[in-house]
Amino acid sequence: MSDEGSAISPKTISRLPIYWRYLKELDDFGIERISSQELAKRIGVTPSQLRQDLNQFGQFGQHGYGYPISELLISISRLLGLNKSWRMIIVGVGNLGKAIASYPNFGKRNIKLTALFDVDPGKVGTVVAGVKIRNISEMPSFFKEQPVDIGTICTTPEAAQAVAEMMEAGGALGIWNFAPVKLKTSLPVKHLHLGDSILELLYCINRRNEE
Amino acid sequence: MSDEGSAISPKTISRLPIYWRYLKELDDFGIERISSQELAKRIGVTPSQLRQDLNQFGQFGQHGYGYPISELLISISRLLGLNKSWRMIIVGVGNLGKAIASYPNFGKRNIKLTALFDVDPGKVGTVVAGVKIRNISEMPSFFKEQPVDIGTICTTPEAAQAVAEMMEAGGALGIWNFAPVKLKTSLPVKHLHLGDSILELLYCINRRNEE
Repeated sequence: MSDEGSAISPKTISRLPIYWRYLKELDDFGIERISSQELAKRIGVTPSQLRQDLNQFGQFGQHGYGYPISELLISISRLLGLNKSWRMIIVGVGNLGKAIASYPNFGKRNIKLTALFDVDPGKVGTVVAGVKIRNISEMPSFFKEQPVDIGTICTTPEAAQAVAEMMEAGGALGIWNFAPVKLKTSLPVKHLHLGDSILELLYCINRRNEE
Repeated sequence: MSDEGSAISPKTISRLPIYWRYLKELDDFGIERISSQELAKRIGVTPSQLRQDLNQFGQFGQHGYGYPISELLISISRLLGLNKSWRMIIVGVGNLGKAIASYPNFGKRNIKLTALFDVDPGKVGTVVAGVKIRNISEMPSFFKEQPVDIGTICTTPEAAQAVAEMMEAGGALGIWNFAPVKLKTSLPVKHLHLGDSILELLYCINRRNEE
């Protein structure tokens, strides 16, 4: 289905946001070029991995001159869709939903939080991060009024699948899922699981102590 | 430095927590065996990837009989260090620190939240998730009284490096880092960056729309 020639490896994809952050910082400082050694060091890859990463989506840099920062930044921004603006909603405004709503760096990424939804009548009508919490029953009509690009799920695992289905039916383009459950959906999903993340750390600690 | 023979690939490591969660669920239901097809489907890998994953740390299952769940669960639990108990602190009790402190599933993973630290005098002395917030200046003495295994950093990017150094000096075994900054430390670090995570989702949405 997809164009094999333009496919970027999952490892490179996971590094694109890091490239973007560092290049943006350098560009903001008015720096124009960076050597592959220096950029590789900042990202935490080898110069050869760096070249392999960047060769997957373009031809950058001349031997001995380093990489042109703004050119590279434009390419990566385009790959990440940062040349467009994105509207996001969050469903489930518990502690984690609140923390995500209050995350200060969405604006830099052209992401705008447009609505919050919860089932708790005690929360509905209150304001978090400048956005009013609506009753989840209003979600289908909200989708008709204002298109939503990203649906963020911070509900209980039990509620997550139904919420994902409402998001897909409403026309969301992708789901950012913090509920510890695998969703059945045809949309792209980025899953962020706190419990899995800390187990990966425990594995590293445990392995190190046994050596 | 490490024993090459016992190294597990990073991809497999990232799947170990997912294996653990599903096997634990099945074991809690009293189910004794699972076919490789069924387990692979639940995890979201192919049966051949599943076999490659599991072969990296043991010999499980007999042809035609499927995998013995409790045996597999014990092996994975041991790899993840879940046969021990772990003490965790969180530094930086803003929205995200609060959300992590309130995460309900640490107990299942033998992780106990033993202290919270913040610099804000308005927060010090208040209680979150049953744990009192202490002044960050008390951290060195706390480490002397009670060993800490996992140091969680939810501070600003500017404060994170100094906090990581205090954790390392105090004897923490690993760092769970939510601050958007690369830490210089000799400890194992698991980095969880909300901004990077959503950019990975945007990449997938963007690529899909262009096909």
